[in-house]
Amino acid sequence: MLSPTILPRPAGSCLRAVVSRSKGSPSSWGGGARRRSLATTSSSNGFFPDKPKGPTVSTAIPGPNSKEASQAIAQFQDPRTHVFVTDYAKSKGNYIADVDGNILLDVFAQIASIPIGYNNPRLLELAKSDEFAIAASVVVPHEYFSSFLVQELTVSIPCSMNRPALGSFPPKEWAQAINSGLLSVAPSGTPHLFTQMCGSCANEGALKAAFMAYRARQRGEEQAFSAEEMSSCMKNEAPGAPQLTAMSFTTAFHGRLLGSLSLTRSKAIHKLDIPAFDWPAVPFPLLKYPLSEYASENAETEARALAQVEATIVEQKKIGRDVAALIVEPIQAEGGDNHASPGFFNALRTLTKEHGVYMIVDEVQTGVGATGSFWAHEKWNLDTPPDFVTFSKKMQAAGFYHRAELRASLPYRNYNTWMGDPVRALQAREMISYIQEHDLVSHTESIGNALYSSLLSRAKSSHSQHIQNLRGENAGTFIAWDLETAAKRDKLVVEMRQRGVNMGACGDRAVRLRPMLIFGQPQMDVLLGTLDEVLKEL
Amino acid sequence: MLSPTILPRPAGSCLRAVVSRSKGSPSSWGGGARRRSLATTSSSNGFFPDKPKGPTVSTAIPGPNSKEASQAIAQFQDPRTHVFVTDYAKSKGNYIADVDGNILLDVFAQIASIPIGYNNPRLLELAKSDEFAIAASVVVPHEYFSSFLVQELTVSIPCSMNRPALGSFPPKEWAQAINSGLLSVAPSGTPHLFTQMCGSCANEGALKAAFMAYRARQRGEEQAFSAEEMSSCMKNEAPGAPQLTAMSFTTAFHGRLLGSLSLTRSKAIHKLDIPAFDWPAVPFPLLKYPLSEYASENAETEARALAQVEATIVEQKKIGRDVAALIVEPIQAEGGDNHASPGFFNALRTLTKEHGVYMIVDEVQTGVGATGSFWAHEKWNLDTPPDFVTFSKKMQAAGFYHRAELRASLPYRNYNTWMGDPVRALQAREMISYIQEHDLVSHTESIGNALYSSLLSRAKSSHSQHIQNLRGENAGTFIAWDLETAAKRDKLVVEMRQRGVNMGACGDRAVRLRPMLIFGQPQMDVLLGTLDEVLKEL
Repeated sequence: MLSPTILPRPAGSCLRAVVSRSKGSPSSWGGGARRRSLATTSSSNGFFPDKPKGPTVSTAIPGPNSKEASQAIAQFQDPRTHVFVTDYAKSKGNYIADVDGNILLDVFAQIASIPIGYNNPRLLELAKSDEFAIAASVVVPHEYFSSFLVQELTVSIPCSMNRPALGSFPPKEWAQAINSGLLSVAPSGTPHLFTQMCGSCANEGALKAAFMAYRARQRGEEQAFSAEEMSSCMKNEAPGAPQLTAMSFTTAFHGRLLGSLSLTRSKAIHKLDIPAFDWPAVPFPLLKYPLSEYASENAETEARALAQVEATIVEQKKIGRDVAALIVEPIQAEGGDNHASPGFFNALRTLTKEHGVYMIVDEVQTGVGATGSFWAHEKWNLDTPPDFVTFSKKMQAAGFYHRAELRASLPYRNYNTWMGDPVRALQAREMISYIQEHDLVSHTESIGNALYSSLLSRAKSSHSQHIQNLRGENAGTFIAWDLETAAKRDKLVVEMRQRGVNMGACGDRAVRLRPMLIFGQPQMDVLLGTLDEVLKEL
Repeated sequence: MLSPTILPRPAGSCLRAVVSRSKGSPSSWGGGARRRSLATTSSSNGFFPDKPKGPTVSTAIPGPNSKEASQAIAQFQDPRTHVFVTDYAKSKGNYIADVDGNILLDVFAQIASIPIGYNNPRLLELAKSDEFAIAASVVVPHEYFSSFLVQELTVSIPCSMNRPALGSFPPKEWAQAINSGLLSVAPSGTPHLFTQMCGSCANEGALKAAFMAYRARQRGEEQAFSAEEMSSCMKNEAPGAPQLTAMSFTTAFHGRLLGSLSLTRSKAIHKLDIPAFDWPAVPFPLLKYPLSEYASENAETEARALAQVEATIVEQKKIGRDVAALIVEPIQAEGGDNHASPGFFNALRTLTKEHGVYMIVDEVQTGVGATGSFWAHEKWNLDTPPDFVTFSKKMQAAGFYHRAELRASLPYRNYNTWMGDPVRALQAREMISYIQEHDLVSHTESIGNALYSSLLSRAKSSHSQHIQNLRGENAGTFIAWDLETAAKRDKLVVEMRQRGVNMGACGDRAVRLRPMLIFGQPQMDVLLGTLDEVLKEL
């Protein structure tokens, strides 16, 4: 969800060379703008016919306008995490525009949070249609509900202006919107949904549901809350506020609210000075890459990790601190893009099931197609589905899917005033439909395989020192690698950005690719071409 | 933020009588619809010229359509908290429409979360304007940015479709949108802003900032994190994850995420089975009402509570569990609408300041005008402002204001991918401007005084058994009272709803009024007229 590994500012030293390469009119997409030559050979992938064919950079990044705009924000809000101030109206497809007229290929995509490109033309076309005009005047006849944007607008105008308490006064469009949207991509085995505000909230919501279910099981189905539970919980004491444990893995990232932060173990800067729950983390198996070349060694590493998971569950039970839930990312993202095998996750599911531990799969970053399946955990082919699957980011809306029987025993136990945002739920629906119509998950799988192969060949030859531990085999475009050092990694990110590719970092010395699902061959050409240039000089 | 005290279902017994009173065409506002007679005498307050003049109820609530719609939602989400399924497109001003065509005066307003009425006509007029059409076609010239909705739309189309990571890639419109919106109503002394996703998130964000500031003060300005802190925080252990305390009051409600839930002490159902931080709560002074009649007795009660606050701060320090933050609602809402005097809060500010405890004022429910000042804590006339003021609900956007020097020492310490939602921030701006133009805070103060007086005279005469401990003297429309028992209270809420007034409950046996800021004389007539009828039969 965040990261100190988004590098905020470029080193001054690299500016001159780059600025001199590209002097075209920086703020226009076509016409007078000189495009970077490496991009002109690419063909379109068809999604955005008039998209820019390559980046245009004519100032330092952040440029003078961006710095000025950041300074204006600094009067009331921390500007130190700004990469640049963005012109969203001018951003298009895979390309993000800043306020200095620079246009960058965006393979970071709002920290992995944009699925189908900036200003997707489908929405813009509909914005000009007759239906749109009728809807915009807020005449809301049902017969106009046939196309999404009309519905989006008719619904979003009432819902945007009258933000509902979704749990108590749901809009009449809710069931239809969810059934045709968020629910249509519910992971197998978890057909129920709890909508929330963000990924951290989603993880805590699932955690609360797991704690409740665990205690309900201990209590037995017929047994009501005891008087002691009712009174002790009000004092934050057991048995009402029980000494239950939620377990996570080292280098995991699950959010930054006080419960989810107790699960997060990615970086000290996230956790320093914040009180935490006394919950254990089990070492995540740190594998060798490419995975296929180190299969047996990796299997041993995973077996050791699994043994520790089981030992910790047993130990915690002995000291009366039962592990109620285990939460795991299919690929640890913020913590360094750490992968594990389907076998590992299958064993984890078996273990958690045997010990009565609820399994929460945190798909906040991996979900919605980027790994080459809609949900990353689909590739595990589990016999028993996870108990909870959380989502946010690219879904644009947040929440968790769960097994039907894990609904809270009583109303208002898991609840919040807004419980999400219907506008965002509708946006999710439109994007899901777009993804399905364009088969963007398969597309991402195949372009990801090509990208991985191209990077692997570089790792094995010309750039072996700069491309270490390449990750992402069979994981769509969810690709990362280590540089020699954190300093080299930081330099790579800054240089890439200055040459028109916005990318992100993770872990100690890794860069991560988090492009959108419309990332295609032309963008891959730009990415690799720019990377080759930068690596040569690194 | 929520409550088991929203009563979900009416008792079947009351249905027939009510249904027979009102049989007009339930789904239309005017023309054929028969209005309830008590409302027809009311005059308009000018905000919504064509608003309904009274409720129309022609089915049980929830009615058959609502039940069916709930059932559709039940397939994937808990429907037990639904009051009724809502037709937001048909809701208008102070009146909420359900899917059975019933129209209710809404003095609960999405759990105190609608400020200027459903489908405020200002937005609808703009929706039909030329500027709107131009903006809708996503030509985004700056000269069209003069009116809100154009900006809302031009910005919300790019921002809605391209949800930004506000902390890293802020939109170019951000500073202007915030300066003219959320920041224009920043409480005195807290001019900086951190935007978040919801009220619970806002409280936890402020809490994190308080913990960081407390440790920074202990550490001294020049002192970096120690190696021990860096490593211990990764194990959720002190000193890196310190044993600091956040203190709240009994019967407080501050949210439902794991940290904020540890501060919440309103009801067991919120807290049961969820592990909690071992933080103490100090008894909130439970005063006698009307406050002015029991001034000296109440002063003693408050003095006792203050002594306990100080004793707890001292005790916690002795055991190495320093109180870093104290959080308090200006009026405890969910916990029963418990008031305290300005003198109490002034003493609290003095105490916290003396002991170096950061003071967080939770204005999630009290903020944005309902108490007769924009922020409830303005009425305290503090010498030293609070360190943090949190908001959500009626602001439609969430976050916290803070003293400028309380920004985190390093970037990414308080951070999250979305950090709020620009669409909601723009909506907040428009509502703030509407509130100011129509002087709705003064309006609410005066209509609130009139409403309080009317209720007080009833409490003192005809309905004394049903209107006990009336609260809300000089608190705008933020009014509540106790019934004899929880059962009577529940019955009142159900009967009122069935007769066309949607109201909320709180605490053990209280009802709370949380109307919008456009609640005026005509709506007061409907409310009191209906209440008189219901109380007679209670």
